[in-house]
Amino acid sequence: MSRFFSAKYKDLTPYVPGEQPQDKRYIKLNTNESPFPPSEKARAYAAEAAAKLQLYPDPDCRELTAAMAKTLGVLPENVVMTNGSDEALYFATLAFCDEKCPAAFPDVTYGFYPVFAALAGVPYEEIPVRDDLSIDPDDFKTNRRTLFLANPNAPTGLCLPLSVMESIVAANPDRVVVVDEAYIDFGGQSAVPLIGKYDNLLVVGTFSKSRSLAGARLGYAVGQKALIADLQTMRCSTNPYNVNRMTMAAGLGALADEAYTRANCQTIVENRAFAAAELRKLGFTVTNSAANFLFARHAAIGGEELYLKLKEKGVLVRHFKLERIKDYNRITVGTKEQMQALICAVKEILEV
Amino acid sequence: MSRFFSAKYKDLTPYVPGEQPQDKRYIKLNTNESPFPPSEKARAYAAEAAAKLQLYPDPDCRELTAAMAKTLGVLPENVVMTNGSDEALYFATLAFCDEKCPAAFPDVTYGFYPVFAALAGVPYEEIPVRDDLSIDPDDFKTNRRTLFLANPNAPTGLCLPLSVMESIVAANPDRVVVVDEAYIDFGGQSAVPLIGKYDNLLVVGTFSKSRSLAGARLGYAVGQKALIADLQTMRCSTNPYNVNRMTMAAGLGALADEAYTRANCQTIVENRAFAAAELRKLGFTVTNSAANFLFARHAAIGGEELYLKLKEKGVLVRHFKLERIKDYNRITVGTKEQMQALICAVKEILEV
Repeated sequence: MSRFFSAKYKDLTPYVPGEQPQDKRYIKLNTNESPFPPSEKARAYAAEAAAKLQLYPDPDCRELTAAMAKTLGVLPENVVMTNGSDEALYFATLAFCDEKCPAAFPDVTYGFYPVFAALAGVPYEEIPVRDDLSIDPDDFKTNRRTLFLANPNAPTGLCLPLSVMESIVAANPDRVVVVDEAYIDFGGQSAVPLIGKYDNLLVVGTFSKSRSLAGARLGYAVGQKALIADLQTMRCSTNPYNVNRMTMAAGLGALADEAYTRANCQTIVENRAFAAAELRKLGFTVTNSAANFLFARHAAIGGEELYLKLKEKGVLVRHFKLERIKDYNRITVGTKEQMQALICAVKEILEV
Repeated sequence: MSRFFSAKYKDLTPYVPGEQPQDKRYIKLNTNESPFPPSEKARAYAAEAAAKLQLYPDPDCRELTAAMAKTLGVLPENVVMTNGSDEALYFATLAFCDEKCPAAFPDVTYGFYPVFAALAGVPYEEIPVRDDLSIDPDDFKTNRRTLFLANPNAPTGLCLPLSVMESIVAANPDRVVVVDEAYIDFGGQSAVPLIGKYDNLLVVGTFSKSRSLAGARLGYAVGQKALIADLQTMRCSTNPYNVNRMTMAAGLGALADEAYTRANCQTIVENRAFAAAELRKLGFTVTNSAANFLFARHAAIGGEELYLKLKEKGVLVRHFKLERIKDYNRITVGTKEQMQALICAVKEILEV
């Protein structure tokens, strides 16, 4: 820290992304990436866009926003595209939280929510999940706080049914409810169809998972026109060219090939069922994940120990030191072969 | 604006980027883009990177940071790469300004500085430039405010000599001086060699202008290790994957082809001299620009009128409504042919 660093951030703890070790090749099951390459169209469009990089991207991102809106069944005025969904979440924290309106989210959830709140200088409340790591919807019906709810939740994978999510949105008419649907394409039911009914609902999505574009950085937020206009104000006050030309093109390519996305999601869902069943056979407790990862613990081995032993064997998973979930590991669902290699490594470690 | 928008931003006026009209093809001289395509290496590397978009980019941006550091003659710990230089400027505003330490910049300068300050909720002071639009260095020697100095300045193109910039840095030992060198490659002398001597100097640069990568969104900041660490804290608290894979690759390609960049800059400098001389022959007052644009006014026609008439003729330039510079237009220096077309259009409008 320099002697010039503003005192307001002296206690700020940045988000720590999953490790990207360079020492050897790993089976990488630690950052919930897709095991499948991007759509051929995404690759081709992006490569084509690289020839025109001397020109700024369209700051209104019109073409991609229109395509996204069409895919989601909404109007372009209901959508803003962002540099990863993290940017959408940050803008929402800035726009919809302040001293009078704290942020709130479960104590076990995406680790970036408290960082965004701290950076924006807004108070936040962490609402404990139940012992089984599920969210109690009644804890989120105070109409007092701006809510951030990942659905499916991370790193548990647990998903609230749409009817329950709607009951939360309806119970907070004077507060924005941000539903972070990064993992929705692997089994959950999206809240996007509810935006016409609720002016306080903001749905956030990403191209990083189901659309195999983690490396391109593309996300979006969907909501009623006025909410989106507020996020546009934030976007144009930080970085009006937030989405670069190649990423715009890759996004258009991905949206032009939704059949590929759906097929990949289906494969992930099958591989998830396979891996979960195998882990349960080995004595693991595995949450009922609707996402592209599993969350699992085993009575005979600590979470960190398993993580370290898997890493030694060339399999990277994600371990969190947070007390309530320190016995668990989050394991990205990859190809069938990757899941078989994982199970094989686990068996060796457990000596079964 | 929605009813949920935080009151703290109710007066926030976003930055307005140069227009990108889609109605017809223009000679685009309004956003200071390069008229030359990106280096072949930048295109090829970026296209190659598009095949691996399912994987997150390296959040530490190691390879590109190392290449940038080598190009600048500093260590990797002295460099942070950003999603355009706007992001570096925003992070600096967050990190180094607060109630006790206001931001300050000339009243005629890059229009994003006051927006960043307003968004960050920090006070700022706009220091009037002289009547000839030049900066009086003595106005910036109070050791009281975090300074943002574009050098060359925008939209005037006027450049402070390195010795004068150093005197400002030296006169503010307890405040960070941010030197925004977006246009430095077209004639100015960079302050980067001073970073070893001054722990309060932060130099910001971009790949958008001289390196023909405006569409890729790539910028950087250079300073002593502790200053850069503060910006890294900001980066990892907003978007640790701020630079996507394709842009990283394009940046590496551009840095591997600096001869191309230098040749393009030389051409721009020649075309700038040609266009400035022609405009002066036509009676224009033209500032002594060291950037890839000219800033010019004519006694016989208002700035807005000339802008509108040029637009009618298919030539886009940038007009600012700010009172002190409303008689001027900012004209990007493009190819010789573009400059000839500009002069031709101006002659028709002036009927000479």
